[in-house]
Amino acid sequence: MTGDIETGSLSEKAPARRGRRRRGGEKATPELFPQKPFKQPRHVFKPLEAVSADELEAIHDASMRVLEEIGIDFLHEEAKELLKAAGAVVTPGEDRVRMDRAMVEELVAKAPGEFTIRARNRAHDLQIGGDAIAFSCVASAPNAVDRDDGRRPGNQEDYRNFLKLSQFFNIIHCIMGYPVEPVDIHASIRHLDCIADMVRLTDKVFHIYSLGRERNLDGLEIARIANGLSPEEFVKTPCVATVINTSSPLRLDTPMLQGLIEMAKAGQVSVVTPFTLAGAMAPVTIAGALTLQNAEALAGIAFAQIVRPGVPVVYGGFTSNVDMKSGAPAFGTPEYMKAAIVGGQLARRYGLPYRSSGVCAANTVDYQAALETTLSEWGAITGGGHIIKHAAGWLEGGLSAGFEKFITDIDLLQKIAEYLTPLDVSEEALALEAIKDVGPAGHFFGTEHTQARYKDAFYAPIVSDWRNYETWAEAGSPIAYDKANMLYKKALEAYEPPALDPAIDDELTAFVERRKAEGGAPTDF
Amino acid sequence: MTGDIETGSLSEKAPARRGRRRRGGEKATPELFPQKPFKQPRHVFKPLEAVSADELEAIHDASMRVLEEIGIDFLHEEAKELLKAAGAVVTPGEDRVRMDRAMVEELVAKAPGEFTIRARNRAHDLQIGGDAIAFSCVASAPNAVDRDDGRRPGNQEDYRNFLKLSQFFNIIHCIMGYPVEPVDIHASIRHLDCIADMVRLTDKVFHIYSLGRERNLDGLEIARIANGLSPEEFVKTPCVATVINTSSPLRLDTPMLQGLIEMAKAGQVSVVTPFTLAGAMAPVTIAGALTLQNAEALAGIAFAQIVRPGVPVVYGGFTSNVDMKSGAPAFGTPEYMKAAIVGGQLARRYGLPYRSSGVCAANTVDYQAALETTLSEWGAITGGGHIIKHAAGWLEGGLSAGFEKFITDIDLLQKIAEYLTPLDVSEEALALEAIKDVGPAGHFFGTEHTQARYKDAFYAPIVSDWRNYETWAEAGSPIAYDKANMLYKKALEAYEPPALDPAIDDELTAFVERRKAEGGAPTDF
Repeated sequence: MTGDIETGSLSEKAPARRGRRRRGGEKATPELFPQKPFKQPRHVFKPLEAVSADELEAIHDASMRVLEEIGIDFLHEEAKELLKAAGAVVTPGEDRVRMDRAMVEELVAKAPGEFTIRARNRAHDLQIGGDAIAFSCVASAPNAVDRDDGRRPGNQEDYRNFLKLSQFFNIIHCIMGYPVEPVDIHASIRHLDCIADMVRLTDKVFHIYSLGRERNLDGLEIARIANGLSPEEFVKTPCVATVINTSSPLRLDTPMLQGLIEMAKAGQVSVVTPFTLAGAMAPVTIAGALTLQNAEALAGIAFAQIVRPGVPVVYGGFTSNVDMKSGAPAFGTPEYMKAAIVGGQLARRYGLPYRSSGVCAANTVDYQAALETTLSEWGAITGGGHIIKHAAGWLEGGLSAGFEKFITDIDLLQKIAEYLTPLDVSEEALALEAIKDVGPAGHFFGTEHTQARYKDAFYAPIVSDWRNYETWAEAGSPIAYDKANMLYKKALEAYEPPALDPAIDDELTAFVERRKAEGGAPTDF
Repeated sequence: MTGDIETGSLSEKAPARRGRRRRGGEKATPELFPQKPFKQPRHVFKPLEAVSADELEAIHDASMRVLEEIGIDFLHEEAKELLKAAGAVVTPGEDRVRMDRAMVEELVAKAPGEFTIRARNRAHDLQIGGDAIAFSCVASAPNAVDRDDGRRPGNQEDYRNFLKLSQFFNIIHCIMGYPVEPVDIHASIRHLDCIADMVRLTDKVFHIYSLGRERNLDGLEIARIANGLSPEEFVKTPCVATVINTSSPLRLDTPMLQGLIEMAKAGQVSVVTPFTLAGAMAPVTIAGALTLQNAEALAGIAFAQIVRPGVPVVYGGFTSNVDMKSGAPAFGTPEYMKAAIVGGQLARRYGLPYRSSGVCAANTVDYQAALETTLSEWGAITGGGHIIKHAAGWLEGGLSAGFEKFITDIDLLQKIAEYLTPLDVSEEALALEAIKDVGPAGHFFGTEHTQARYKDAFYAPIVSDWRNYETWAEAGSPIAYDKANMLYKKALEAYEPPALDPAIDDELTAFVERRKAEGGAPTDF
């Protein structure tokens, strides 16, 4: 079916082979994937507010009471020592840490409201916060799926292919986690191979997992090498991020605290994101889940500021609701949208950059997938999100990363970016002369005003099939999924690895080989 | 496949038969179609603004210059007389009418900012304007389509089935046109049968077409009969609407002007909607297309206010862009979204209720359909739309009305309504006690706080399939389209005709029979 979907010239090409670069396929790229240069979209609309100022204060107050009266378990001795020294109440022999609101607010206020995170290709540096938006690809899926080979546990080839797609599409601004977990690489060295791949196959901002101190230290070193920085420069230059997930409710586990400590010591970015699923790990009410989210996110952020005052952090919101029939997480629900918007209000209250997500619970690339994904983006974008994670390729509540879904989501993200481009309301755009020239009952297509502009006047979709019904039916009635199946393979063909300084490449190789020879990292996490 | 998709109890039922009411199917309804009572959603968010106040004035100014300097063709002698008498410049022997901005603004200011439109079931009366939203089903499609019988020219059975679905689902607030054109009824009497069906098969606000004076008069009389009003009461009671489409660029055709005149004389509602397709009937720039939209909409609205000052009208926006490869209309594009938002800004500038749409260019119920439809709703809702037309069932740029699409759109609309329901931020909702009781590492599912709320805590989707991958794969990997195919037939089974006063029924029968005996209406429009 691939050949029928696009132009005649393409239908004459041989079927694409996944994962293999083929020079011959590149010519088709501009037409198949009309994309704009790498650029962060900007919030041009005022963020929506789903709760009043008083209601926002009520959520704030409740979360402060959680931190003051109930407390959070910090499963890490050094962390508890640091918190105690900073004024928190820590009962000896227990993990519970209570902080009063003055302490929390003072610490949180030390975090920057916006900052730059450096990419090894400086043209891909990102502004985090302010009016800037950064989309990142799906992360942490245990499975990969496409139509040809079905659903399978993540492997290195799929992992690399998702990195290539993330590099290929300019609308993906950063890689905030392994798109899929390559379980065919031994866990002790997986992080070394995976992070090295991020550096070599992409030149965008990337992420390292907080799964034990050694992995953080290895990831930090690879980020330093990739950016060609001295240790002294590195600590002053945010260029790598981790996501810290609290163990809701009310707990920060040891590896996450190790991650917060090492990232903060190194001056690098922690995105603190409680996964507060209303009705499961969080109260069944969205206001209650947001109270818990806020308490946990601020606890992590305050702690990072103890370790290194002023270190860049991001307020992560990931409140959704369960399917009350099955207990499974749901995404892109109305409750999710409201939580995403209030999450943004909370982040702005504390002057912090805000992370949200583009997610769904669908098992395949159908109406449901688009509906839920688009509604979650509606919440994230109108809520003022700065980092929109999982924005391309996420399926099944994160249990799989889909190649076709990656492509359909690229179309959504490019549309959102175009939607956020200000309208031209210049005198020429108002077109009074053209309206006069055409007059009643005329047509604008042939006018000079149109001819001068039509090529770039409108966003050209990569997935939408705008052929008329008859032509489309003759072509076999392809659905978006079919076209996306063809397109992801074409994108992989057209992928070109970004340039990498041979000296950096060598240093990276030497580091990875040395750490592998040392046995990698412990696997008892 | 239908049986596998839902609960076991349903899988034991016989396959549904379309269009036939079957008492046995009704028991399944509450679980299959969890819907809330009929209620208009409310705008709880401040509408977005895609252009600045100055830019809005620039669009206003340009459109006023269109009306002053270029003028609009009014293809109707009486209309031109009325306009001339009201101060417009009309060159004898020509159709061109020029109005200065003072005249236009003064006339437009006479229109009410909001009003109530009466339904024959008063529980279905609608507020038009203010913070109220009304969704209407797909209208005016020449074809109907479902998976079982494919795409076919509209017929009476399909027409009636769409009316039944529109009645069945509480989230459909009104019927703003024939969902599909039943071409198997002769054009001379089609309006009589169709409007009588609207009265009998639904009890919601409905629409009559402006396709010649006789049809308007017949439709008005049927609306009067349906509402049990005297002629004197009728003229004071808005209870039926028409959509007036200008013939862009810059022309109001005879039947549309006849419609505007008869509706205004009868005190009924005209929704004036230019179809300004950027790059075709309108300038290729969105600002230019909006200039044209605004000029044409205000020309029609001003004219209605000449006929009857204070008559209720709605400002319709339907600016989109063409696919520049084929010239076909595109919908749900980034440009569409921006135009929908600016359309709302313009309507608010003039204090008028605003009509927008939920539309797509997809040929079937796939990712594209959901993406484009949801993005158009994103524009309509954030833009402050009051009547959202075509909101359920629209496919192919309006060339077909889809039964499965109707169902998937109902899910979208219900989600939007839930999204627009204010969050509960009461002390109980903040859930501090529950958070305290559960503590770290606990789970909220078993708590009293959850148990007391879980049944109604979250929106229950009708299409989204939230089963895990394995269970879903075992069930044959159904997509949303499959489930919607089953559900639309179940909804038709569960449909019950609304009560109708037998005296009204008799009067309606007598009127339709008399008009049929008289030959109906001319078919030379």
